[in-house]
Amino acid sequence: MKRIAVLGSTGSIGQNALEVIKCFPRKFRVAALSAHSNIELLYQQIKAFKPEKVCVTDKQKALILKRKISSKTRLFTDSEGLEELCKDSGIDTVVLAISGSMALTPLIKAIENKKEVCLANKEALVMAGPIIRRKARDNKTKIIPIDSEQSAIWQCIAGGDSSKVKNIYLTASGGPFLGWNKKQLKRIDIRQALRHPRWKMGRKITVDSATMMNKGLEVLEAMYLFNIGADKIKVVIHPEAIIHSMVEFVDGIIMAQLSVTDMRIPIQYALTYPERLPNKLDSVDFYVLNKLTFQNPDFKRLPCLKLAYRAAFDGGTVPCALNAANEITVGEFLKKRLKFISIPAVIEKVLDRHRNKIKPRLDDILETDSWARREAYRVINATH
Amino acid sequence: MKRIAVLGSTGSIGQNALEVIKCFPRKFRVAALSAHSNIELLYQQIKAFKPEKVCVTDKQKALILKRKISSKTRLFTDSEGLEELCKDSGIDTVVLAISGSMALTPLIKAIENKKEVCLANKEALVMAGPIIRRKARDNKTKIIPIDSEQSAIWQCIAGGDSSKVKNIYLTASGGPFLGWNKKQLKRIDIRQALRHPRWKMGRKITVDSATMMNKGLEVLEAMYLFNIGADKIKVVIHPEAIIHSMVEFVDGIIMAQLSVTDMRIPIQYALTYPERLPNKLDSVDFYVLNKLTFQNPDFKRLPCLKLAYRAAFDGGTVPCALNAANEITVGEFLKKRLKFISIPAVIEKVLDRHRNKIKPRLDDILETDSWARREAYRVINATH
Repeated sequence: MKRIAVLGSTGSIGQNALEVIKCFPRKFRVAALSAHSNIELLYQQIKAFKPEKVCVTDKQKALILKRKISSKTRLFTDSEGLEELCKDSGIDTVVLAISGSMALTPLIKAIENKKEVCLANKEALVMAGPIIRRKARDNKTKIIPIDSEQSAIWQCIAGGDSSKVKNIYLTASGGPFLGWNKKQLKRIDIRQALRHPRWKMGRKITVDSATMMNKGLEVLEAMYLFNIGADKIKVVIHPEAIIHSMVEFVDGIIMAQLSVTDMRIPIQYALTYPERLPNKLDSVDFYVLNKLTFQNPDFKRLPCLKLAYRAAFDGGTVPCALNAANEITVGEFLKKRLKFISIPAVIEKVLDRHRNKIKPRLDDILETDSWARREAYRVINATH
Repeated sequence: MKRIAVLGSTGSIGQNALEVIKCFPRKFRVAALSAHSNIELLYQQIKAFKPEKVCVTDKQKALILKRKISSKTRLFTDSEGLEELCKDSGIDTVVLAISGSMALTPLIKAIENKKEVCLANKEALVMAGPIIRRKARDNKTKIIPIDSEQSAIWQCIAGGDSSKVKNIYLTASGGPFLGWNKKQLKRIDIRQALRHPRWKMGRKITVDSATMMNKGLEVLEAMYLFNIGADKIKVVIHPEAIIHSMVEFVDGIIMAQLSVTDMRIPIQYALTYPERLPNKLDSVDFYVLNKLTFQNPDFKRLPCLKLAYRAAFDGGTVPCALNAANEITVGEFLKKRLKFISIPAVIEKVLDRHRNKIKPRLDDILETDSWARREAYRVINATH
């Protein structure tokens, strides 16, 4: 019986993770849950899964929830509360489904406490990839990716030698604006940006998919997860989103991983790894599918991907600055304070002004993160 | 240094195997070669690779070759000569690239002498799959497939548990007659049947590809190689021949193996397994490829595939009878004594008349093989 903490349980990945866990009651037990503020849904989850510990990072919301739940469930709050769950000796596996940079500290705590980590968050790795890699190695902690693309790469390499990898083909559905011209892109509103053609996801990642920054963050994530240079990571537009990524080896052989677009599939694999268990999810029907298509990504039309490659090649604190500037600009776009087309423009200015620190320590990362956030606001306020 | 015997070295796979071996002079040494009758090419190969032992199964041709080569190269002949090479203690790996049922005895000898076998021949497994499986297990002999589809499946399962396989998707280019109607099929001549759209191969296998019997034999081969029921092996027409096969696991995850259509790729993998070594062969370019397509196989138009499934479900000596009848009919077609469209008709009659023996021993197999050959001739002579 694997005792699991689902951090970010009310988000899209968190909810899917609980659905998977529910299907295997003899294999998994939910030992802890956390949410930021959606206490209504969290309350339902507590009733259904009866975790011993719960954390609500928003303190006000935590107080409200406290009145509703029984004293058997221990309630924590704030980021310290999250860390508490990551240290808990009663927990084997942490499903890290918190969105954004908020996940960095819990991830590090989980690694330091030798928990198996099923990682859905990409921002933490983008910010501090080399530090996380080192800590995972020193603590012999396994980080199993949940993200469909990283899960695909993980399965294609299959515990093999990543030095034998010639190229990674990171597939991208292309998002809702595939094929749109500049004039159309100028007029994009929130509603349009939140309408992803293939995946139902949270708001931030859906906007990231629309700008292609999501794929850029995945380039950085893959670079750190698999210890592979960004020059070997190629993005291929694949609108059907059936091939979740491919790995080409030095002998010219390509392994690819395919499935229907259902996040429960990679989540289940991460939780059951290295085992495979039957489920009732849909299968790809090749007799109906007809075709899989591929296109070149357009770096000019959606420049976020290009910015991510720039950060990948620069290394140091640049990926962290990129991520922070992206979180701010996407947040401002969602608050209708920034145009869709201005997202990459602001990020580029922040990168231009950033003084890179090669081989950063964790405090350099945290400093860059807050600097880049302030700087992003400054750029936005100066130009709008 | 791996000491390799290439049996069937003058055929298409044999020649490709030697090209691969030539690229890795520090890894591989050709210790033995064999050919049936093409002594001109064999002589060139002897000069280039300087094997210690050579076998020419055609006795007349062996005598002619004997006069030309130095006494340093030991020359063997007949099927006993082949067996001699398979027993040789100086040989680590046998590349079995002999076409047709002739490969059965050498395969068994190689297994019994605990040689690693790189298997390109499919007929031997089709004839005596369960016997070969058992012998390989008892002798702890590895049979590594060379055939691009079986190599793909092998890599997709990646040493994993075949009980976790839900389906195998065996891809088929569809051959030269994909989409042809019955009227067109009636008029097919040898020249057309030997024009395969994707692969350059020997004559017998090229005709098998045109009738789809090649895919049928692969269904049987995969069934025995991977110990998987024929009901789980699905054929998908994939004209681009880039995906060489796919494996779907019980969790809905599909692994696929892709590469350009170049036999040197799976040959190299079989020889270097489990290592991967860099080469200068072409890569798939997804930015140029544009699309991969899939279709349902048409069991009615090309009934050989259906006959192979029938043999797979019947088991026992039926696959052996199928294979023997196929070898005879294809041979007669190549001699212009039988129409293309009559190939499945004759095979079906042979199967109808065959009395199946469940759990056959090796002599039952050999008996079925010669009975089915005689019976195929009888059917052909009675109807033409």
